[in-house]
Amino acid sequence: MVKTNLLEYFSQQQSHYAALGTSAENWLSQLADFIVGGGKRVRPTFVWLGWLAGGGERYPELSDAMTRVAASLEFVQAGALIHDDIIDASDTRRGKPAVHRIFEAAHATQKDAGKVLGDSADYGEASAILLGDIALCWADDMFLTAGLTAPALQRALPYWSAMRTEMLTGQYLDIHGETLPTVDADNARRVNRFKTAAYTIERPLHIGGACAGMSSQMKEILSDYGVNLGVAYQLRDDILGVLGDSSVTGKPSGGDISEGKRTVLLSHALKALKPNRATKLWNLVGKNLDEEELALARELIVESGAIQESEREIAELSQKAASAVAALRNVEGVSPQLGDAFEAMIEKVIRRTF
Amino acid sequence: MVKTNLLEYFSQQQSHYAALGTSAENWLSQLADFIVGGGKRVRPTFVWLGWLAGGGERYPELSDAMTRVAASLEFVQAGALIHDDIIDASDTRRGKPAVHRIFEAAHATQKDAGKVLGDSADYGEASAILLGDIALCWADDMFLTAGLTAPALQRALPYWSAMRTEMLTGQYLDIHGETLPTVDADNARRVNRFKTAAYTIERPLHIGGACAGMSSQMKEILSDYGVNLGVAYQLRDDILGVLGDSSVTGKPSGGDISEGKRTVLLSHALKALKPNRATKLWNLVGKNLDEEELALARELIVESGAIQESEREIAELSQKAASAVAALRNVEGVSPQLGDAFEAMIEKVIRRTF
Repeated sequence: MVKTNLLEYFSQQQSHYAALGTSAENWLSQLADFIVGGGKRVRPTFVWLGWLAGGGERYPELSDAMTRVAASLEFVQAGALIHDDIIDASDTRRGKPAVHRIFEAAHATQKDAGKVLGDSADYGEASAILLGDIALCWADDMFLTAGLTAPALQRALPYWSAMRTEMLTGQYLDIHGETLPTVDADNARRVNRFKTAAYTIERPLHIGGACAGMSSQMKEILSDYGVNLGVAYQLRDDILGVLGDSSVTGKPSGGDISEGKRTVLLSHALKALKPNRATKLWNLVGKNLDEEELALARELIVESGAIQESEREIAELSQKAASAVAALRNVEGVSPQLGDAFEAMIEKVIRRTF
Repeated sequence: MVKTNLLEYFSQQQSHYAALGTSAENWLSQLADFIVGGGKRVRPTFVWLGWLAGGGERYPELSDAMTRVAASLEFVQAGALIHDDIIDASDTRRGKPAVHRIFEAAHATQKDAGKVLGDSADYGEASAILLGDIALCWADDMFLTAGLTAPALQRALPYWSAMRTEMLTGQYLDIHGETLPTVDADNARRVNRFKTAAYTIERPLHIGGACAGMSSQMKEILSDYGVNLGVAYQLRDDILGVLGDSSVTGKPSGGDISEGKRTVLLSHALKALKPNRATKLWNLVGKNLDEEELALARELIVESGAIQESEREIAELSQKAASAVAALRNVEGVSPQLGDAFEAMIEKVIRRTF
């Protein structure tokens, strides 16, 4: 459904901007490929759950519009990931070359054939910066023209705006944190709160809920659920980033350590270890590690008790999310099936292995 | 007026996002500085003229909202320039260091003091990519919450969307053109049409006009005026880019030649020169030139007759823009003063020396 909506929107935009010519079309087609080619569609799912929680089934005439609203979040995510991959100098994404690398490679091939000038890496990056910008703008365009009523749109807008600012600022706090010669636990928690929890779960729920005219009580319940589950989502991600099986996660094994990510997990470990062991671990963070060094880093983190500490937090957070679901079930008009769907997402998010 | 609106919007956002903390606040303050610190405010002016042309004075109750709509285009422009400066690896903008250089320098100072880790240039670029994204998102937020009525907003939205896509695609076509081992005149004209004419004049006029509920006849008149004047604006820019006095333009003398810009002016010159002279000119394009080489490039362009050719085109285009003003004056309800204001902008745009 999300994919169909995205494809439809793309072909509509393409015909609208045909005057821009073939080069532009080729460039834009990379965005189409990226957007329909992958992604877990987590945010659209939460928009839809928020819509139902807010009482959306009372407005069946808006349900097509809502599927487009839900799909539009994939454009936000595309813009975020395309720019993030430039920032992190990542080579791959979703099992394919990162977008800036695709443009770089195309340029390099043409250059070898003597057909183009200039630096391939610069061209790749420039093309991807602008394509990420287009993705962010088209997210808006799709959201605003999804077919919501004017009052529904007005209600949803503040959450839409907040989601984007919180995501981008969270991203900035993340790269800012990586420049610090320590792990600032407050900063790490703030990144989890905004970059992950608000962006991935809380605000998508709010957007859906606001479209349906959720009560202020429901808004609080969705926040409660979204923030707790969202932070748990990130803590699980942190554990997978250290101990995850790369054949399942699709990311390099122990990637968070060599990338120097300032996670809450790492902060737990550094705090719990004896000073000489903590220094040993810190000296391995943000470096290119061989297998032996990586094993040592993992051992130190496990030895510190940080994994259990994070698992304990995840359990606590998912308990809080479950309490929010209990509150949700008590709201008039909420079907048992909807409560079950919210509960199932807790399991899915918390138990995931990738 | 524009500045007051921008400052107001900023402090409103700042209080709204206070939970994001001090590091985020410092980062965002660079956007505030950039946006209130300069710019010719060309686009807000055209939004306002479009509003009046569409009959906006019939809705005095919306005039405050319209000043905010007009100001919001400065956020679009901020996002475009911040990203453009990364793409062009520019060191300065508006007489100050480019935004990515400001973050880079701040990081470098801290690094010298042993307070931060990592590569200063990477940090500067990452911070600026995300800040440009914020600018694009806040442009929307400011536009959408300016206080327009729902119908006015619905009317204006298609032009708002078109403006952003045309600008970003025009930027892409521009960098794409610079990779070609020739001057593709069609591509150069398409860049002028979308990156300059649509983005700077036509769409801002349309946005203002649509808010006021312009007639389809008025929409055509504004396109006629905007496209012709907009392309003339760019042709003047191209001449200044070759012959302009750097003490007046604030840009390096002959910058377009050494940057390798694929302008219509250059295309005129290469077409008109004899083959051996054309080759001589082409070999100077996109290189770091000394004074003598730059003088030779200028001489070749002048000798080709390209300057007169472009001046002739500018005169023709401004004549067409003037005809559009004549048509505008004939529309019922358009005051003679408004016709004069449109005419004055032709002079201002065509005769400018910077």
